[in-house]
Amino acid sequence: MALNSHSFRLAGRGSKPGDTVIDVGGVRIGGAMVVLMAGPCAVENEKQIIAAARGVRDAGAHILRGGAFKPRTSPYTFRGLGKEGLKLLALARKETGLPVVTEVMTPHDVGIVAEHSDILQVGSRNMQNFHLLEEVGRSRKPVLLKRGFAATIEEWLFAAEYILAQDNPNVMICERGIRTFETQTRNTLDLTAVALVRQLTHLPVIADPSHASGRRDLVPALALASIAAGAQGLLIEVHPDPDSALSDGHQSLSCEGFAAAVGQIERLAACLGRPLHPRLAETQTSWTR
Amino acid sequence: MALNSHSFRLAGRGSKPGDTVIDVGGVRIGGAMVVLMAGPCAVENEKQIIAAARGVRDAGAHILRGGAFKPRTSPYTFRGLGKEGLKLLALARKETGLPVVTEVMTPHDVGIVAEHSDILQVGSRNMQNFHLLEEVGRSRKPVLLKRGFAATIEEWLFAAEYILAQDNPNVMICERGIRTFETQTRNTLDLTAVALVRQLTHLPVIADPSHASGRRDLVPALALASIAAGAQGLLIEVHPDPDSALSDGHQSLSCEGFAAAVGQIERLAACLGRPLHPRLAETQTSWTR
Amino acid sequence: MALNSHSFRLAGRGSKPGDTVIDVGGVRIGGAMVVLMAGPCAVENEKQIIAAARGVRDAGAHILRGGAFKPRTSPYTFRGLGKEGLKLLALARKETGLPVVTEVMTPHDVGIVAEHSDILQVGSRNMQNFHLLEEVGRSRKPVLLKRGFAATIEEWLFAAEYILAQDNPNVMICERGIRTFETQTRNTLDLTAVALVRQLTHLPVIADPSHASGRRDLVPALALASIAAGAQGLLIEVHPDPDSALSDGHQSLSCEGFAAAVGQIERLAACLGRPLHPRLAETQTSWTR
Amino acid sequence: MALNSHSFRLAGRGSKPGDTVIDVGGVRIGGAMVVLMAGPCAVENEKQIIAAARGVRDAGAHILRGGAFKPRTSPYTFRGLGKEGLKLLALARKETGLPVVTEVMTPHDVGIVAEHSDILQVGSRNMQNFHLLEEVGRSRKPVLLKRGFAATIEEWLFAAEYILAQDNPNVMICERGIRTFETQTRNTLDLTAVALVRQLTHLPVIADPSHASGRRDLVPALALASIAAGAQGLLIEVHPDPDSALSDGHQSLSCEGFAAAVGQIERLAACLGRPLHPRLAETQTSWTR
Repeated sequence: MALNSHSFRLAGRGSKPGDTVIDVGGVRIGGAMVVLMAGPCAVENEKQIIAAARGVRDAGAHILRGGAFKPRTSPYTFRGLGKEGLKLLALARKETGLPVVTEVMTPHDVGIVAEHSDILQVGSRNMQNFHLLEEVGRSRKPVLLKRGFAATIEEWLFAAEYILAQDNPNVMICERGIRTFETQTRNTLDLTAVALVRQLTHLPVIADPSHASGRRDLVPALALASIAAGAQGLLIEVHPDPDSALSDGHQSLSCEGFAAAVGQIERLAACLGRPLHPRLAETQTSWTR
Repeated sequence: MALNSHSFRLAGRGSKPGDTVIDVGGVRIGGAMVVLMAGPCAVENEKQIIAAARGVRDAGAHILRGGAFKPRTSPYTFRGLGKEGLKLLALARKETGLPVVTEVMTPHDVGIVAEHSDILQVGSRNMQNFHLLEEVGRSRKPVLLKRGFAATIEEWLFAAEYILAQDNPNVMICERGIRTFETQTRNTLDLTAVALVRQLTHLPVIADPSHASGRRDLVPALALASIAAGAQGLLIEVHPDPDSALSDGHQSLSCEGFAAAVGQIERLAACLGRPLHPRLAETQTSWTR
Repeated sequence: MALNSHSFRLAGRGSKPGDTVIDVGGVRIGGAMVVLMAGPCAVENEKQIIAAARGVRDAGAHILRGGAFKPRTSPYTFRGLGKEGLKLLALARKETGLPVVTEVMTPHDVGIVAEHSDILQVGSRNMQNFHLLEEVGRSRKPVLLKRGFAATIEEWLFAAEYILAQDNPNVMICERGIRTFETQTRNTLDLTAVALVRQLTHLPVIADPSHASGRRDLVPALALASIAAGAQGLLIEVHPDPDSALSDGHQSLSCEGFAAAVGQIERLAACLGRPLHPRLAETQTSWTR
Repeated sequence: MALNSHSFRLAGRGSKPGDTVIDVGGVRIGGAMVVLMAGPCAVENEKQIIAAARGVRDAGAHILRGGAFKPRTSPYTFRGLGKEGLKLLALARKETGLPVVTEVMTPHDVGIVAEHSDILQVGSRNMQNFHLLEEVGRSRKPVLLKRGFAATIEEWLFAAEYILAQDNPNVMICERGIRTFETQTRNTLDLTAVALVRQLTHLPVIADPSHASGRRDLVPALALASIAAGAQGLLIEVHPDPDSALSDGHQSLSCEGFAAAVGQIERLAACLGRPLHPRLAETQTSWTR
């Protein structure tokens, strides 16, 4: 059955005029301006995360991403630094003024992750971890909800609904590639879905071209395409030294590569009448409240 | 890269001669005999679960299934009776002597679900909920791990590995249909995967033709096909009154329909040299310890 | 929308009581007996096809398969012997008495292929080559229509309808695996579809476990599962020397492997009340009329 | 295995420096300029196709699309006007000066379609109709090769290779959406593939947002995204009266809707440094030779 703006009690456009705009430390996500979230897949150590944070900030990013708790297919691979990673993210935030988005994997960790970060990310594998959705809902922190790699649009927006139903209106949703028969790329970026959810929901829509393709050489083109399709922000993996990354290096841009991409994105966004969000002033440690 | 019996440290056949057999209240799951798990999608009330338990026991089932905690796409639909449902399952177990399998959705609930049931089910949406996997691992209870609806075989066996790595060897894995382009059935039962995982792993392999097809008229044929492909057990939805079920009624067999299917399954299993497991004696309240 | 037996004017069960049975040189395809079609992917030379034909006949096959015209992804790989291959198939038929099924790829070749064979195969890639469907329809020869690797059940049965609409009632349909996200097997055998099309149509339903899995070690289990799901025949790749095959050797059984599988299939089919079709008498050169 | 620019002997970038540019009646397809192909799904009658041709020309299209031979799932639905449709296309070309692209479905029709049109379209269902590929190759006419709805990138470029291998260098390839699990849209536009094939091949890459989404309300956003991802042209369904269209009306823009989209496309293309191709002068009947 065709979804429409009344299919979702809280997430649907039928429930609210205009777009939801979420203010995260002065960064307004979801309005007419494009927001850039960037950083490494995983926090590896202080030097790496500080270099990454400075690199992406200098290139124009508004939000720092970085994983402290990493979901991994095999239990025998690097699963992140955990709490130590959270502290390093908070340090990088202090150094650069960039608000931080990082993943929380289980209800029990919501408190500690919320304490050290500005946006709680719910990952693709947890999109239908309903207890986690309700717990991040109860936290009232801004949430970035990634689409499950095989989730329908209906399931994705109902997952958002779980969070909203806990009286947390600060939900942004993120398309990060779906699983198809194609094997040349890690996933397939579903911009058809981006265009459609922009019609269905008032929530901010973000796109992640890094996980979607799994290849750094495709990230700039897909970043541009995402904005053109209607995405209001991008989540991009950037590592100060991609070839030595502990995870996902092949899909990470270098800081220089990211800076070059930002230049293109900025021109495109301006041309579409949805300009890049202004940079945070370096002195603006907006996350301190 | 092609998987082989050494691809998984603990789950792979390379790590252990012979098949793992898990004894659940006298029911030996994973050996040369076929085991039947049956019952309603959700526990609805005492009358319904007792009728279902008696119906499936009388028809030949060895294990009672029933959901107390139900993962649901929308937050606004029936999500199960929760703890009350667990108590009703325990009551049905007492009445019929059938061990119980039921889903646990979040690490926090593992203790209480383990207390009232015999097998912890990890559902399809939670196959990569790694904290849940580790918690059910630590519980040492038998675990039925459903394949994610878009999980690769590699991801599925690594999910089992997460549980095994917590020193819980009692893991059975369950194929329940994958998501494809076809819309006439809810999912597509992947018996190619069943045949392959039987080669790769020593763990018991179960098939769920009810969720796989979403249509009761297809369940008997797919049950037979699952056994022929190598499945060592079946998980089948049975409701005393399918048309009044609160969830998944369209895919539930009636008790009579289930009894008829068991007859066919029994003949087929015998012919394949992997006969149906003996019925539990009614007086055998094996789960009382 | 849910398909039913009236969704297809000619192919639907609503149009005809009972199952369609197609007599091919004395082999009755589509009735209550299971029919085996076997042989190499491609006809390579006289010695190979004669050895294969004798091997599969001696093991119990009723129909010889073999490709003279081979659809190949790359234009630079072996594409079959063409007309020479057709002649070798006719020779093998004369030697063994087995009717022959072989693929026709384009309308222009229907005449010559019909002249040298008993069943025209329309391959997966051509399932919606509508001009070819109409041409094999007009030929009035029996047709084996493979399901496209990403065709819905609706599209598959409408493709059969194209042939039937040319007044050719001799259509059998063949499930050969669909394309999914899984990469460990070439395709995913869709037995959910087999069970469903058995309800929707009166046409004979065949399964091809060789292309479905792409792995010879999975073929026997999937052959059994196909019969259990309701398939009325099997199409299996057999090569006298699989490791030297010019194409698809990895999914071909040896003649000995096939003979062993036939033993299992025979027992299962008997047990299901749908026994293996009697062997053709060697002296019965049924195709000479 | 990862594809690279040497994976395809003729289609790969390794075989040729720079991009292939195909001149069709003065329209240069494949260079640094964006080309627009537009028109109705099917030619219905003279009035309709002339109105469509004028409408799309006035809005800025460079090539007229329209189907005379229509592949249809069911044999009982409108399958196009055939030769009469070709004549009407040629008439519309004469009236407007727009070169014409139209589908050819079978080798036998290549001659007549080539006679009345400027670009031969090979449709999605025929992407691996190898005899058709070779016949359009031998015709030496420009060919627009649509990607099969479940074809891998490797299969798609090898299909192009079949045409190129017949000494026809005038091949453009068109992404038109792939089949996934999502049911809200007809297909899923695969811009990940567009970005990747732009790296792998020197052939012009076109995108079809109309078939990809099946919804006219998504076409403008996906058209912009396609250009941003690297597409060098667009194929868009436009009907003078979409709601009365004999086929695919729900995915067709009106002439006014198309004109509005062209305005957006023009600005975006200019901003990306790949401007819209100049309009054809009305008097330039470039296709007369």
